[in-house]
Amino acid sequence: MTYKELLEQARTCIGPHCKACPVCNGKACGNTMPGPGAKGVGDVAIRNYEAWQKVRINLNTIAENKEPDTGFDFFGKRMKYPIFAGPVGAVNLHYGDKLDDIRYNDILVRACREAGIAAFTGDGTNAEVMKAATAAIRATGGAGIPTVKPWDVDTLKEKFALVKESGSFAVAMDVDAAGLPFLQGLQPPAGSKTVEELGEIVRMAGKPFIVKGVMTVKGALDAKAAGASAIIVSNHGGRVLDQTPSTAEVLEQIADAVKGSMLVLVDGGIRSGVDVFKALALGADAVLIARPYVTAVYGGAEEGVKLLTEKLGKELADTMKMCGVSSLSQIGRDSLFLPQSRYVRF
Amino acid sequence: MTYKELLEQARTCIGPHCKACPVCNGKACGNTMPGPGAKGVGDVAIRNYEAWQKVRINLNTIAENKEPDTGFDFFGKRMKYPIFAGPVGAVNLHYGDKLDDIRYNDILVRACREAGIAAFTGDGTNAEVMKAATAAIRATGGAGIPTVKPWDVDTLKEKFALVKESGSFAVAMDVDAAGLPFLQGLQPPAGSKTVEELGEIVRMAGKPFIVKGVMTVKGALDAKAAGASAIIVSNHGGRVLDQTPSTAEVLEQIADAVKGSMLVLVDGGIRSGVDVFKALALGADAVLIARPYVTAVYGGAEEGVKLLTEKLGKELADTMKMCGVSSLSQIGRDSLFLPQSRYVRF
Amino acid sequence: MTYKELLEQARTCIGPHCKACPVCNGKACGNTMPGPGAKGVGDVAIRNYEAWQKVRINLNTIAENKEPDTGFDFFGKRMKYPIFAGPVGAVNLHYGDKLDDIRYNDILVRACREAGIAAFTGDGTNAEVMKAATAAIRATGGAGIPTVKPWDVDTLKEKFALVKESGSFAVAMDVDAAGLPFLQGLQPPAGSKTVEELGEIVRMAGKPFIVKGVMTVKGALDAKAAGASAIIVSNHGGRVLDQTPSTAEVLEQIADAVKGSMLVLVDGGIRSGVDVFKALALGADAVLIARPYVTAVYGGAEEGVKLLTEKLGKELADTMKMCGVSSLSQIGRDSLFLPQSRYVRF
Amino acid sequence: MTYKELLEQARTCIGPHCKACPVCNGKACGNTMPGPGAKGVGDVAIRNYEAWQKVRINLNTIAENKEPDTGFDFFGKRMKYPIFAGPVGAVNLHYGDKLDDIRYNDILVRACREAGIAAFTGDGTNAEVMKAATAAIRATGGAGIPTVKPWDVDTLKEKFALVKESGSFAVAMDVDAAGLPFLQGLQPPAGSKTVEELGEIVRMAGKPFIVKGVMTVKGALDAKAAGASAIIVSNHGGRVLDQTPSTAEVLEQIADAVKGSMLVLVDGGIRSGVDVFKALALGADAVLIARPYVTAVYGGAEEGVKLLTEKLGKELADTMKMCGVSSLSQIGRDSLFLPQSRYVRF
Repeated sequence: MTYKELLEQARTCIGPHCKACPVCNGKACGNTMPGPGAKGVGDVAIRNYEAWQKVRINLNTIAENKEPDTGFDFFGKRMKYPIFAGPVGAVNLHYGDKLDDIRYNDILVRACREAGIAAFTGDGTNAEVMKAATAAIRATGGAGIPTVKPWDVDTLKEKFALVKESGSFAVAMDVDAAGLPFLQGLQPPAGSKTVEELGEIVRMAGKPFIVKGVMTVKGALDAKAAGASAIIVSNHGGRVLDQTPSTAEVLEQIADAVKGSMLVLVDGGIRSGVDVFKALALGADAVLIARPYVTAVYGGAEEGVKLLTEKLGKELADTMKMCGVSSLSQIGRDSLFLPQSRYVRF
Repeated sequence: MTYKELLEQARTCIGPHCKACPVCNGKACGNTMPGPGAKGVGDVAIRNYEAWQKVRINLNTIAENKEPDTGFDFFGKRMKYPIFAGPVGAVNLHYGDKLDDIRYNDILVRACREAGIAAFTGDGTNAEVMKAATAAIRATGGAGIPTVKPWDVDTLKEKFALVKESGSFAVAMDVDAAGLPFLQGLQPPAGSKTVEELGEIVRMAGKPFIVKGVMTVKGALDAKAAGASAIIVSNHGGRVLDQTPSTAEVLEQIADAVKGSMLVLVDGGIRSGVDVFKALALGADAVLIARPYVTAVYGGAEEGVKLLTEKLGKELADTMKMCGVSSLSQIGRDSLFLPQSRYVRF
Repeated sequence: MTYKELLEQARTCIGPHCKACPVCNGKACGNTMPGPGAKGVGDVAIRNYEAWQKVRINLNTIAENKEPDTGFDFFGKRMKYPIFAGPVGAVNLHYGDKLDDIRYNDILVRACREAGIAAFTGDGTNAEVMKAATAAIRATGGAGIPTVKPWDVDTLKEKFALVKESGSFAVAMDVDAAGLPFLQGLQPPAGSKTVEELGEIVRMAGKPFIVKGVMTVKGALDAKAAGASAIIVSNHGGRVLDQTPSTAEVLEQIADAVKGSMLVLVDGGIRSGVDVFKALALGADAVLIARPYVTAVYGGAEEGVKLLTEKLGKELADTMKMCGVSSLSQIGRDSLFLPQSRYVRF
Repeated sequence: MTYKELLEQARTCIGPHCKACPVCNGKACGNTMPGPGAKGVGDVAIRNYEAWQKVRINLNTIAENKEPDTGFDFFGKRMKYPIFAGPVGAVNLHYGDKLDDIRYNDILVRACREAGIAAFTGDGTNAEVMKAATAAIRATGGAGIPTVKPWDVDTLKEKFALVKESGSFAVAMDVDAAGLPFLQGLQPPAGSKTVEELGEIVRMAGKPFIVKGVMTVKGALDAKAAGASAIIVSNHGGRVLDQTPSTAEVLEQIADAVKGSMLVLVDGGIRSGVDVFKALALGADAVLIARPYVTAVYGGAEEGVKLLTEKLGKELADTMKMCGVSSLSQIGRDSLFLPQSRYVRF
């Protein structure tokens, strides 16, 4: 199976809103929700993708000719690549009823583990989703990261019990999920958390805690103050708030503020190993990729996940080689082109 | 009735120049006048709309989870949202003869009042328009703002007498209306006013006076010197002068110059609650929205006005929640993304 | 006859390269030469037009309500508007054989004079062109400006004798014409002139001398050093050199360097009275408009020239009024919007 | 034969991936490989072309009227123009089997020599390619530059022996070629070289050594430290690494760093004599043009190479004349428009 065949296969069962486009750039889906589209005007997903194309990298082949090491340490576990499959919920609603969240997570978590990386799983109002997700993680010896919604404290306690059983090496919360329709108007309310509330939740979780949905330096510092071990710079693919900047635009400043004191992950429109390289050069430790993994599961199940992961990893290694770096820690700002010409500006 | 249905219904009776587009962005109407189009090259209306899309907002959900208060005090009256329906004249000429100004204002003023906001009414060479508009305002207990054209002093006296009877809490003058065809070549002439002339008019009005059509810091300071209580940053939707900047581009500097000493309102291409949020973050106290209210009245009468107002208000509240603010006064420059990346520029 | 009818009429006899487009912006003709197109890649004419659209103007109606005076003193003659018809040569070759240069100049010079402005006439390898042009100017009592090519000194002497007889109040030389095909390889050579050579030519001309084809501050200072009374900031509509900047981009700096010590004129893509206003605000004293006058002559002869001139003049006066100025000398940099927003950039 | 006819003729035998477009700008081929397309997203070739269009030049005809001298000294040989045909390999694979590398280089080297310039030849895994290329160069008395891939030292020794026999006045190495598929996974490995390794190779070559594939100031200084006599600022047309900047964007800084101490050449999207002029003004000593020479050979063989070379040379001379310079050394930064307007920005 080639990646082109995977996409063709996906097109037979995904949809109707997702078109399994050659490049997943937010254009064909626009603002269709349900569906993978972004909220409101719908241009945030597009901007996420386009922002990475603006970052240009420094070719450098007067350098040591050494096989690049793409390995990444994540809370004590060695990942083959600094790449995670992102959490997705209600796949049947948004991508077609070939799969439901339970079956989807089961395939994804296992296949990611086999491919040397790990998957983030999603959460839902249906309590079975988290149960099945954590069961899938437990089945791989804890090689996955459950993502819980910003529920009220009592609900969180139940969820965290499941997380604990799963043996996962970390837990995430997409604190920005309040912008999704199904989290609105709940009693007790779900949604935003103060630093103090978040601090309590972090302590309650009892595992390395990852805050997903940070888009400002202030947000990163707040997550740190609450005791988070990592943040995910994310605008939820444009699905929780219209008209945010792209993640690539904010990553540089956020990484400068907290890098070293906590892990910095990023998602949003990352579609190739070159994009992964750029994210790391801007300051991320690793990336999440969501929609392409949905296409991979719909189009190729376990084999699709493997194929996509190896494609991304190979692109990353090739980029590292052509930029003269042989380990992830060598990827830095000097790997990026800093526009300085007085005559040529894009 | 959904907003989509409202638009479909409007398309059966609006036109031929207005197409009741899914998003009212000045493109389909271009420079068609009569019709809603802009003057000359016709790109000012387009630029107004596009400028708001360039402003990006800061997602912030590490914050208190509190129901946002969208209320706004306007000359002693509490408005449900910082949103006004903008003044429109000659609706039969520009939008089709299903309605005339008298019927239009009658529906609009009443329905806005019921929706918790207020409408600005228009003016015309036909004296009946102002009479009917002020009568409609009086019928709601003064919950509307009559807008008078920059006539000669004698005509203004007659108009202000009507305004007084209406019991309206304020009165506006679109001093930029001189650029409209029907105000040209009158005897005595209508049009531009010096600070001194405007000062006399303000005193004559005997009510809080709002100057509409300010596009520079100098204009704002002149309006203030003349005794105005508020300005509306506006280029009249591009209909009075070709090739002005967009209102979003000039709002920041104008608000910095006069904020606090007078109210700052803004119009031009504001189409969603997210746009309202951005306008407030740039320094406006409230906004005017004109063309979408025309579509709402043509497509849904009172129900249409209610539907549009609630849609805008809900979008505003949702945006406030996702940006971590719970009252209008908390919306500020730090709610906006300030581009700083050296690698990614849109 | 309306301007739309003029264009329709022109389309029956102009061409095949010129399409008499609704707005003459260099796109349809591209790089077609013969024809009105630009040299090489052909984007200079397009850039000329687009540059003016980037300049935005300050609406200002808190001002005296006074009829604008558009009059302009040009070497002792009062022009109704700061607008000249630009020189065009070989009209039959580039715009169709309905007219030749002799007939074209005859109509244009006379009709411009009647419309209160003046025309620049062109030159050619055919000696009859300059003879007829100067005869046409003489017939209007000298109300036109002959433009001579940068010939050798002997040829120039003959041309200047004709200019003298015409009684014209000034003479121009398009020193950049060397880039045209028909001026290449002549013996003795035509083309570039040093400051010293140009100084001699200026003295030989014995009339106010206008150097056309200046695109840099250095060029303006050189023209001044040679004794020129005026310059025309011009890239010859992109016809003599590919890939120059637009004239609007260079006007500001050039005007700052020589304004006051010599007249500064500008051409290139100026299509409306708003564009004329912008050119003056950037520092020009007056403008030349070429291609639209060709369309006017082909489409409407004398009536077409009158119609176009009055259209432009009326747009200029309207713009002045809406920007709060009542004479050309009041149009300045503060009439222009200076982009300063940190959040909105076009 | 005209250039248009050459393209038409090429279209009968080139392809299927190359379309012999009117302007070779990387759009039609996109990311098709095999074929002339760029790697990954495929936008580097497009960016290379577009970057030159952003650089604008200063028209200047108040200057001496003198026939421009386009001659260029290259390691002791006088070239008619500062233009080289770039190295291309596997032409049958990428451009169609009308020709193979051996026949292609044979035509190209000879025809370039006759046209007064020189060709760079390519290299391949098939050892016959380098043998034939160096034979073709020897046949012209050494008027060509063999380009060797960054092989292991033993392979390089064999290649350099052939280079020596060819009598070429210099030798090049495209050190960035490691990004091409056919150079991957070789034993011993080909690819990146450290400064020390490169220094040994330079000494081994025993001729002026040209490092191709430099995109940063650091790379230029490294090449210099290794003893190279020249660099070629190049991203290999986007074929070895996705998402690099264009060569025009990096040329200014690189030239500032090493100009004078070594020759600076540049390639990538240079398509006209105006582009050549811009490259020299930004700091290059000469340019390489690759794809258009492929089209010329496929479409017109020796005659095509002559026609293309004279077209480029004539455009360069015409540009020099219109910019007031008469030798290559006079082309400098002051020949370029430096954007300074506060009101007009492209």
